[in-house]
Amino acid sequence: MKLPVVENILNENDKVARENRALLDRAKIFVVNVMASPGAGKTSVILNAAQRLPKQIRPGVIEGDLASRIDADLVAARGIPVVQINTGGGCHLDAPMIRAGLAQLPLSEIDLLFIENVGNLVCPAGFALGENLALVVASVPEGHDKPYKYPGMFAAADAVLLNKFDLQSVFDFDVEFFQRGLTMVNPHAPLFCVSCKTDAGMDAWHAWLLEKQNAFARQI
Amino acid sequence: MKLPVVENILNENDKVARENRALLDRAKIFVVNVMASPGAGKTSVILNAAQRLPKQIRPGVIEGDLASRIDADLVAARGIPVVQINTGGGCHLDAPMIRAGLAQLPLSEIDLLFIENVGNLVCPAGFALGENLALVVASVPEGHDKPYKYPGMFAAADAVLLNKFDLQSVFDFDVEFFQRGLTMVNPHAPLFCVSCKTDAGMDAWHAWLLEKQNAFARQI
Repeated sequence: MKLPVVENILNENDKVARENRALLDRAKIFVVNVMASPGAGKTSVILNAAQRLPKQIRPGVIEGDLASRIDADLVAARGIPVVQINTGGGCHLDAPMIRAGLAQLPLSEIDLLFIENVGNLVCPAGFALGENLALVVASVPEGHDKPYKYPGMFAAADAVLLNKFDLQSVFDFDVEFFQRGLTMVNPHAPLFCVSCKTDAGMDAWHAWLLEKQNAFARQI
Repeated sequence: MKLPVVENILNENDKVARENRALLDRAKIFVVNVMASPGAGKTSVILNAAQRLPKQIRPGVIEGDLASRIDADLVAARGIPVVQINTGGGCHLDAPMIRAGLAQLPLSEIDLLFIENVGNLVCPAGFALGENLALVVASVPEGHDKPYKYPGMFAAADAVLLNKFDLQSVFDFDVEFFQRGLTMVNPHAPLFCVSCKTDAGMDAWHAWLLEKQNAFARQI
């Protein structure tokens, strides 16, 4: 029996995400879309990763927030090229916003672009931006049940950082329960337990990130 | 000069929210819509408030989550009538979901209904459910910049709880900066610094809640 082939009709966001990706491929820029709850530590994770990069891999950042430029100011203070996108109430970044942000960045001076999405453990997972990697940052104070309650976000992750891990005992955080929930919705994403405050666990996560970036740079 | 009067056309959600409110008024049920980031402590705040209620004010709970019934099981274990709503990926509760939830609750046995919204500091603020009060729960580990970054949610609050306040010094949380941001977007909502873990600050918040519930009960 022959089934008719139905072409996958991309919605407008996916179309623009592909165009972003093509532009970024030409510019040889590896992109990480960083998603998390409000206050999980996205900015700290990005700043930590950026300062660990070898000299030949130059960072850039797109900051997404409903309002304010608090995070962009933090990034700019480190001398990293950054653009702030204010969604004006919107609960996630989308591909057209990223296209507009890219137009404001010195792309020839960037090798690894971090996109900090709006703090939201639901909506950002549904909008491709043109990234190479989707990184989900969870944090210990949020509790160990998050993969069970927000399966869509954790299913979309290429890797998960569990931040503020220095406070594991303060919050009676059950890592095995968290890992079990993560594996249930996403058997492939590695979990890195880290602390931006103490730097614990950052070596393993950073080595993984660089390996991915290297694979991209070799193939592009 | 006479301006034409344009009737405010309610959208479907607002219509159902009004119907919910009418039903709840007839049942003399005071309703608190509890909104927060994932893991800020909504369930703990609800359980704390429920156990402090005088005997004649009987609690009930509607739990909202994308998936799982973790929170509903916690509430049911306390002998409190509870319904779990799974949004199946949806980023907020809406009035029709609450209508369906109310149909499953023993309304004649409930005086104060807590609705725990999906953990999300953006989308829930845009959807009336038929509540009397909108309560926003922030928490210290999320950081003191949240009112600046999520102004819509904080503007929608009738009161704000700042939970996990026992950890203020661990996180270098600047309460004045937080309060300034809150006042900027919402000059009227009182801020209560509380800890579900130590019970600190709960007396003041609970007195405020009971005052509001009493005012409702007197007028209905």
